[in-house]
Order: sequence, then structure tokens, then C-alpha cells
Amino acid sequence: MRLITCEHNGVIIAGVLSDDQIIVKAEGDAAIYAVRQMIEQEQGVTPWLSGNATIPLNAVQLLAPIPDPRRNIFCVGLNYHDHAEEYHASDFDKSDKPSIASAPVIFTKATTSVIGPDAPIRSGLDYSNSVDYEGELCVVIKKTAHQVKAEAAEDYIFGYTLLNDVTARRIQQDHNQWFLGKSLDSFAPMGPAIVTADELPDMGSRQISTTVNGELRQQSTLSQLIFDIPTLIETLTKTMTLLPGDIIATGTPVGVGLGFTPPKFLKAGDHVTVSFDGIGDLSNPVI
Amino acid sequence: MRLITCEHNGVIIAGVLSDDQIIVKAEGDAAIYAVRQMIEQEQGVTPWLSGNATIPLNAVQLLAPIPDPRRNIFCVGLNYHDHAEEYHASDFDKSDKPSIASAPVIFTKATTSVIGPDAPIRSGLDYSNSVDYEGELCVVIKKTAHQVKAEAAEDYIFGYTLLNDVTARRIQQDHNQWFLGKSLDSFAPMGPAIVTADELPDMGSRQISTTVNGELRQQSTLSQLIFDIPTLIETLTKTMTLLPGDIIATGTPVGVGLGFTPPKFLKAGDHVTVSFDGIGDLSNPVI
Repeated sequence: MRLITCEHNGVIIAGVLSDDQIIVKAEGDAAIYAVRQMIEQEQGVTPWLSGNATIPLNAVQLLAPIPDPRRNIFCVGLNYHDHAEEYHASDFDKSDKPSIASAPVIFTKATTSVIGPDAPIRSGLDYSNSVDYEGELCVVIKKTAHQVKAEAAEDYIFGYTLLNDVTARRIQQDHNQWFLGKSLDSFAPMGPAIVTADELPDMGSRQISTTVNGELRQQSTLSQLIFDIPTLIETLTKTMTLLPGDIIATGTPVGVGLGFTPPKFLKAGDHVTVSFDGIGDLSNPVI
Repeated sequence: MRLITCEHNGVIIAGVLSDDQIIVKAEGDAAIYAVRQMIEQEQGVTPWLSGNATIPLNAVQLLAPIPDPRRNIFCVGLNYHDHAEEYHASDFDKSDKPSIASAPVIFTKATTSVIGPDAPIRSGLDYSNSVDYEGELCVVIKKTAHQVKAEAAEDYIFGYTLLNDVTARRIQQDHNQWFLGKSLDSFAPMGPAIVTADELPDMGSRQISTTVNGELRQQSTLSQLIFDIPTLIETLTKTMTLLPGDIIATGTPVGVGLGFTPPKFLKAGDHVTVSFDGIGDLSNPVI
């Protein structure tokens, strides 16, 4: 099942995709919270697929599936080996830590940075001119989770979506902690849909990729994660509580802009696309 | 004016304090969001003080004034000179950065770490046995703020409250980014009330202090901040948007547990109190 939020003739709609039709589950301003509420209510598939009007997918503009998350997006840093090496070798890592972390590096992105597919990444907000892309797979949490062991983590996964963890590299660096350089308005494109876990078997072998203006920059599989998804859920819930609808971005593969010499940062006119086998494409122009 | 959220005979109540009486503005489960909504609606003082039942303050148990924030708490690290030196000199700062940051260090705490006055800090959740206190003044944002200059920042301040930015020092250190060591369940005592800005003139000269079991550990004034509150609002809103009800913890003075040799970490049975002249006391037992 694919949950989406979208805009149709100026009205916000939340729904479920069935082929190329959207089954409308909520509409109006409150629909901005509907996907989150649908997850919280843990409805089975049947009521979600029942009744209501349908709208063709090609008649709407997709928004982020959860346009206004209940709290910041959880992000995991340096979680692919090759990317951790690339970051460490760049001019942007001033620490004397080893390139491969001994424990997951967790930070957050502000809710106000979330935008949907096709919405512009506002590069002009980065006064440091170092806008970089990071294609990432996100886990969406199904139910309240505290002290969940890795072996049981699967039961707490509702589904998956994509995030472009857009980053202002010099702000990330200059402010020591990463939050500010990760939280510029429009720096969290998310979507195109939340795909439930049952539709994505064999996650480890599925490809994630990122292109800039059609040029392939990142390509990997989840099997390359240093800390896999069950380990991330165990780590987070060991001391804190995760809530239904929480979003965890699992890290980005090698190939970000800072890894090139000179760095290939995003600029106005660029177009960046994150893709995942079974979820689809998340494309955004840079202005 | 002092806005509070509390529990009275098992019912959640949000209200305004008038002497020792609570003027009830909302009650029932939805009252957990009422203070946040009151700020969002930007009501003037008159409707807040009008009508409704009253309950004596001594008949209720205070909760955090905003028990379930709309997103993570913004926190500023290393924002008092003496504390920045103390942190840098401790075994917990492995960076080669200068002790005094050239730009504000911003990170976040999870919403699920918030507790109210008198609620227990659950030290047992910190498997690393390094629970530390950090008494802090918080700014509560009044209205949507983007690219606000320091000179205009005052217009965006609704009021102030207190936070104990409780921290698991070894988790803070081991995970590189600070979020996880700052976000254990119960590690964000907040309160006792949100006091509107008009009731707190001369903020710079007011004292903030922290005691542990009655022993004075931290004592300073806001005039000692490296980055003052208007500068913090300018820094955050330069690239992102702040929302009404957002909470910014402004940093902690010298005297935290890690500054002692050996460190004086919190343990079960301790009692920690953060106080601010004009706001009151935020006291919590450690279990």
C-alpha cells in the first residue's frame, strides 16, 4: 500500500494509491495530518482501501507524505562505509575521530525543512554557498517503541519513504553540531509516498540512487549500511521512546558533492532525483 | 502572566495563574495542547484572564507548561564562557576545536524527554552512568519568525520558562552528535510556568541557579551569555523558520557535574532544582 498526501485544485488530500487512482481518505486543511493519523490509528488495509471518491494520480501535485511531522526527523550520519571515508577525507570534517563511528551518529532536521516532490530547494537560503544532496531511505515507525531489541524491530516498522537530506556544508561545519546546516527551509524533500513494509521484501538488495541533472552520483544498497535498520531502532529506543509516524533517515551512500575535488555543490537550475527500487523517484529542482 | 498546564484529580488542565488561583482555560485530554494553542492564537491578556472556574494552585500537580511540544526543543550548547572552558577541559570533549565557539552550537532534544516539575528523572535509563544536570533559561517564540534581525527579535518572544537539560555525558560523547545523549525519556524537566516577557524586565541582570540536594552548583546571569537571545533568534531564523510555541534553551552556566574532579554525576535519591528570578523553581527528584 502506498500512502500519499497531495494537492488537487488547491485542496489538500490524503489518500491511498490504487494503480493510478488516489482513494481519498481525507480532504481539506486537516488532511495535512491525515497520513500521520492513519498510522497512529493502525488501521488494517481493508478500511484504507474502502469507499470514498477517487482522483487520478496525474491530476494532483504530490506533497510530502507527512508534510508536517509531529517532531523533527531523526537522521543517521556517516552510516555507509564509503561515505564515511569520503566525509573524513574532505575539508569539512575537522574532528580527529576515526572515519567509521563506533556507535550510530544521530542528529535531527527541523520539521519546517520538509517539502514535497517537485517543490524547489531554495539554495539562496544558504549564505555559505555549499548546498549538498544526500539521498536516503527513511523508516516510518508504526507504533510506540521503547527498548525494542533488533530482533523484534520489524514489528515496529510501518513503511518506508525517501528523503533528500539537503545540507549546507559550511553551516554544518561552522556550528559544530549539524542541526542548523541540515534544517534550512526546503532542505528536506520527502516522498513520493510511504510504502508499507509488506510491499518491500528483500530490502537489503534494493538499490538507492541519486542523480544530479541526470548524472548518476550515488548508488548503493541497504546491505552496505554500517548500522542496519533493526540496530538503529534498538539504539534509539534503548533510552528514548519512538512514536507512530516518527521518521528515521538511515544515512547516505558515497557520492555526495563534498566528495569531489573541487566539491560539486548544487546551484540554481540543477535538478536532483533520489530513487529507490519499489518506492519510486523523489525529484526536486534547485532554485 | 503565567501560563501553566497541570493535573487536577486526574484531569489535565491548562490555565493562567492569578495569585494562587488557576483560571481554567481548557480541561480534559486536549488541554495538553492548550498552552501551545493559546500562544498560536496570540490572544491578548484580557480573554485569558476572563471567566471560567478557578482552582487553587496548591490543589494541583504542575506538568510542563507545554507537555508535548510541536517539535524538538532547540538547545544552544557551550553558550556561557566559563562553562565552555569547563567542558573543553573535561574528558568529555574530544574535539580539537577552540573552547569558545565562533558561532552558536545548536542541537535538539526529543519531545518525549519532556517532564514536568516534581516528576522523576529516570537515571536508570542511562546505561553509561553519567547523568548530568544543566540549568537553562528557555525562550518561547510568539509568532512565525523568518530572517528576523537581532534588533527586532524582542517582538517574537512570547515569554520564558526553565529547562533542566539533563544529559547522559558518555552517550553524548560516544555518538558524536549530541542528540541521543540529550534525549533520554525524562531528561527534559520543564516549568514551572511560561512567564510572559512583560513580567520580566531587565532579563540580563536576573539570576539563574541550580542546586543539587540543596548545594549550589550553578549561578550566573543572562548577561554572561556568549550569544545573547536576540543573536540566537537572528541566527536560527537566518536560514529556517521558527513557529509559535517553539522553545529555545539558551545554554547552561559553569558548574555542571562533569566540571568536577571526579565528576559529580546525578544518582538515584538526588534532588535537583533550577531557579530563575521571576520564574520560580523547577525541582525534580532523581530515581
